[in-house]
Amino acid sequence: MQETQIKVLDRTLDQAITEKINGKTKPLGSLGQLETVGAQICRIQHTLQPKLEEPAILVCAGDHGITQEGISPFPQEVTFQMVMNFLAGGAAINVFSRQHNINLLVADTGVNFDFESTPQLLNKKVAKGTRNFAVEPAMSIDQCKQAMQNGADMVTKLHQEGTNIIGFGEMGIGNTTSAAALLCKYAGVQPEQACGAGTGLDQKGIQHKAEVIEKALKLHQAITSPLEILACFGGFETATICGAMLKAAELKMIIMVDGFIVTSALLAAHAMQPQILDYCIFTHQSNEQGHQHMLSFLRVNALLNIGMRLGEGTGAAVAYPLIQSAVAFINEMSSFADAGVSNR
Amino acid sequence: MQETQIKVLDRTLDQAITEKINGKTKPLGSLGQLETVGAQICRIQHTLQPKLEEPAILVCAGDHGITQEGISPFPQEVTFQMVMNFLAGGAAINVFSRQHNINLLVADTGVNFDFESTPQLLNKKVAKGTRNFAVEPAMSIDQCKQAMQNGADMVTKLHQEGTNIIGFGEMGIGNTTSAAALLCKYAGVQPEQACGAGTGLDQKGIQHKAEVIEKALKLHQAITSPLEILACFGGFETATICGAMLKAAELKMIIMVDGFIVTSALLAAHAMQPQILDYCIFTHQSNEQGHQHMLSFLRVNALLNIGMRLGEGTGAAVAYPLIQSAVAFINEMSSFADAGVSNR
Repeated sequence: MQETQIKVLDRTLDQAITEKINGKTKPLGSLGQLETVGAQICRIQHTLQPKLEEPAILVCAGDHGITQEGISPFPQEVTFQMVMNFLAGGAAINVFSRQHNINLLVADTGVNFDFESTPQLLNKKVAKGTRNFAVEPAMSIDQCKQAMQNGADMVTKLHQEGTNIIGFGEMGIGNTTSAAALLCKYAGVQPEQACGAGTGLDQKGIQHKAEVIEKALKLHQAITSPLEILACFGGFETATICGAMLKAAELKMIIMVDGFIVTSALLAAHAMQPQILDYCIFTHQSNEQGHQHMLSFLRVNALLNIGMRLGEGTGAAVAYPLIQSAVAFINEMSSFADAGVSNR
Repeated sequence: MQETQIKVLDRTLDQAITEKINGKTKPLGSLGQLETVGAQICRIQHTLQPKLEEPAILVCAGDHGITQEGISPFPQEVTFQMVMNFLAGGAAINVFSRQHNINLLVADTGVNFDFESTPQLLNKKVAKGTRNFAVEPAMSIDQCKQAMQNGADMVTKLHQEGTNIIGFGEMGIGNTTSAAALLCKYAGVQPEQACGAGTGLDQKGIQHKAEVIEKALKLHQAITSPLEILACFGGFETATICGAMLKAAELKMIIMVDGFIVTSALLAAHAMQPQILDYCIFTHQSNEQGHQHMLSFLRVNALLNIGMRLGEGTGAAVAYPLIQSAVAFINEMSSFADAGVSNR
């Protein structure tokens, strides 16, 4: 993938942003996280009149060799079946994207299925599923770079079309196991802390998943560079999203970070370029237990914490109106002076 | 106020509701609180095809005699100034209601100001502010009943116009002190636990507020009936909202409960008719510390917890799209069978 260079945010407007927010007709700080998100968007866009334009969610689907280890209660075929569901408009992410007029894009980044060609499905397939990382690295370095470049290309195109805020979603049976392994490697978390129920494992299943990861971590313990870690334990969807996020930040777009899998892609991007965090809004805290460890590691707070753990970018989609609210109050609320309201 | 009779919810559809939700193409339970809210709305409306119609937020403004005790950093005139701000469209609740096409109504329930008559402002003034409950009951029983009836009347009209979901907001300098006193009386919480910063008190100010409440509780310790408590410590806006909520539940409307003040009105309504809770969606947890005690006392969870403490119904307004999402997924998502996706 071509090198991205994410700029550190220009903070010269910070005082003016704070003054604008504090001058609004409300008790100081009383809009909570809406104020911090609004200020962040002002900084990203270097303006006192922030705007959200052509919001998009890019759902990346890929299959995982690690499913051979029996770590999911759902069969691998559910990945392609859910892609068909996305294309038919019947999945949760379709419903929530329609609700908020979010442009929904679906990409095959590495599904183990031959889709008929259709303009609705972006063909970014690197291979028909990753290899089993319990045995060998999931991707070659070249495959991982290719997936990252594919993500960057899709984001570049959306940016050219006017999108300035983008969320990411994913579909891939087995990908909570991949994400948990990435969490262990990037953040130094232990497998039993990193593993959760995924699509519905019981306690015994979760323990098995943790053991699979523990063995794999041992097998690949020599691997330490951010890119190699992603290639070894990641998925094609994760690598695609990682490259997409890096490009989005380079282009000064707002990144809506979804749950466990998408944040695992961000851990990779963050290991490569930590300043990416300035461009990220954490939309929700997943009920998948490892997600809390990811957010703690990155020292960030999410907007929503309502027990969701569906994936597909659904957390980003349902949180989007809160981001709109953050922008709206900055642009539309009266100040104490304008409204003739006595300040303290 | 005329007696309301809130019906206990008919639970005969419960199994069908659960089956419909569990049949959707997603891991079991993976939409978290959106599932519980969606199921609740199905139960309230006794249907498998829930609908939100003509959403409304009714903001009630009133003044408080307790401001004579120096419990707010803002002067009392801010109440009427903010009402003018609502009418001009420049307050936070205006912005968020516009964002979500929520019908915003503003009522003068007892502001200490003579407004010019305008169809934009519902004239439900009982008196020009309550009395100082540090000295005497804030309202007479008749005044309190009148305010409750006013609330019921406004809700009845909205129901006739097709509204089936309603939120409440408030404006009234001094009303966090009133709400804290109600919390103490209805839920047995101590004043120092019930008191927070309100519009911006410092630690010393909060302590003074708690002392004012402690003395007032002692002065009025003989008062124990739900209605007398509301009359003694409440505000005209609180009593109006209490009556409005009771009527809304009787009419099987969905009630969006906002933050600290609105929940204090619900504590009164709940003390009168506990089955009202079946009709309530708790939209956010306020950063005003007493609110957490209210939610714990009622044994409920809120949707949002993003540090908001502005009032005006803003928590209900910004959470409204989540309630829409809860309804949308039930109506629009495909089932495993419809989408041809393998279930576990």
